[in-house]
Amino acid sequence: MKPKSLLYEGKAKRLFETDDPQILWVEYLNQATALNGARKDAMDGKASLNNEITALIFEQLKRANLQNHFIKKISKCEQLVEKLEIIPLEVVIRNISAGSFAKRLAIPEGKPLEFPVLEFYYKDDDLDDPFINDDHVKILNLASNQEIERIKNEAYKINKALSILFEAIDIRLVDFKIEFGRRADGTVLLADEITPDTCRLWDKQTDEHLDKDVYRRNLGDLVPVYQEVLNRLNKRFD
Amino acid sequence: MKPKSLLYEGKAKRLFETDDPQILWVEYLNQATALNGARKDAMDGKASLNNEITALIFEQLKRANLQNHFIKKISKCEQLVEKLEIIPLEVVIRNISAGSFAKRLAIPEGKPLEFPVLEFYYKDDDLDDPFINDDHVKILNLASNQEIERIKNEAYKINKALSILFEAIDIRLVDFKIEFGRRADGTVLLADEITPDTCRLWDKQTDEHLDKDVYRRNLGDLVPVYQEVLNRLNKRFD
Repeated sequence: MKPKSLLYEGKAKRLFETDDPQILWVEYLNQATALNGARKDAMDGKASLNNEITALIFEQLKRANLQNHFIKKISKCEQLVEKLEIIPLEVVIRNISAGSFAKRLAIPEGKPLEFPVLEFYYKDDDLDDPFINDDHVKILNLASNQEIERIKNEAYKINKALSILFEAIDIRLVDFKIEFGRRADGTVLLADEITPDTCRLWDKQTDEHLDKDVYRRNLGDLVPVYQEVLNRLNKRFD
Repeated sequence: MKPKSLLYEGKAKRLFETDDPQILWVEYLNQATALNGARKDAMDGKASLNNEITALIFEQLKRANLQNHFIKKISKCEQLVEKLEIIPLEVVIRNISAGSFAKRLAIPEGKPLEFPVLEFYYKDDDLDDPFINDDHVKILNLASNQEIERIKNEAYKINKALSILFEAIDIRLVDFKIEFGRRADGTVLLADEITPDTCRLWDKQTDEHLDKDVYRRNLGDLVPVYQEVLNRLNKRFD
């Protein structure tokens, strides 16, 4: 199998069609972005780390019966995934107050939340991915009522599985963003990636940021931090 | 009964305690504001118009068995209302796309929505009244699950009643903002005001703005426009 036409170029990866209409070829990029792409920097080593981390996590989720698009890692920076019709929603789950949430609602960063807070954002670069509610999801025809329920249920289950996984390697899962897609038969399942680009991960002992906030907030080099996350995951699952 | 200590000064009215701990004295002000109070102008005649309009509408809602805090109009610019513990939520219902909603979601202003879209905003001047979802309402302890359900149900019923009322005077109810409060016994009911300050009202024939957008968008004098709304309501209910 080989990559054919470029289907989509995102902020941190490229998606290519393959000979198989149901399979996409994903190439992770050595690139970090913030502020919806307004800030962008080359970052050697990031691509392979994210490719490995998301592969490892998606495999673990499959073992926990949480369906997702991942097929297999095929090289340092590349993997194959199932081709889905992506639902243009960023689904965010928050376990601890941080980032924009902390600021918008004046809930101090670091405060544990009584229950996992779920948020939808409309994936639309021109609109700057606005925060929306369930009514907006429906009025924009992004997903049906049934799909919204499925997405929420899956998101909560993924949160539980990920929290346990990170807890075991001394990391607190503060919040994360996931995306879902539809199979031709209508099944909705987890797509995209789960990496330190898309999660806030804090060291359990030191509260050190082990995620893209290192880049967003200019806290130092991002690559060694992502390497640390991968090392801990590998140690756990070797 | 007389007004005693000032309880609260809002952007368009003052609330006073009275001798009766369960009753508040409301004084409407000749003042228009926009941009969360950043723009403010004196406007002779607005106070009495809003006092009359909200009195008339709240009476009609009571007739339709939609409980609210209104007791009676006592002068040109004043009315008595039941004292409630106000829930710090702005509850917005949208029937037609307009304003911030139209811009945020790129749904053209004037497009009728397939169903009434409900939105919550957290009433907090320092935070600029951020748009929030149901999870945020709960995490901020603004209302219980049961209260959220009650508020939504009441809001939809109020929307139906108001839409019929305005339809009868050739006005389209585009959207509106309401607030709710709690009685000592926990009952949640409609509070605050319903006026052209808090609704978008478009003339059915001409689409002319008959609401505060006249002020927000510098479309002319606001007072004759509010007078027109009151005239039509009076004609209907005399």
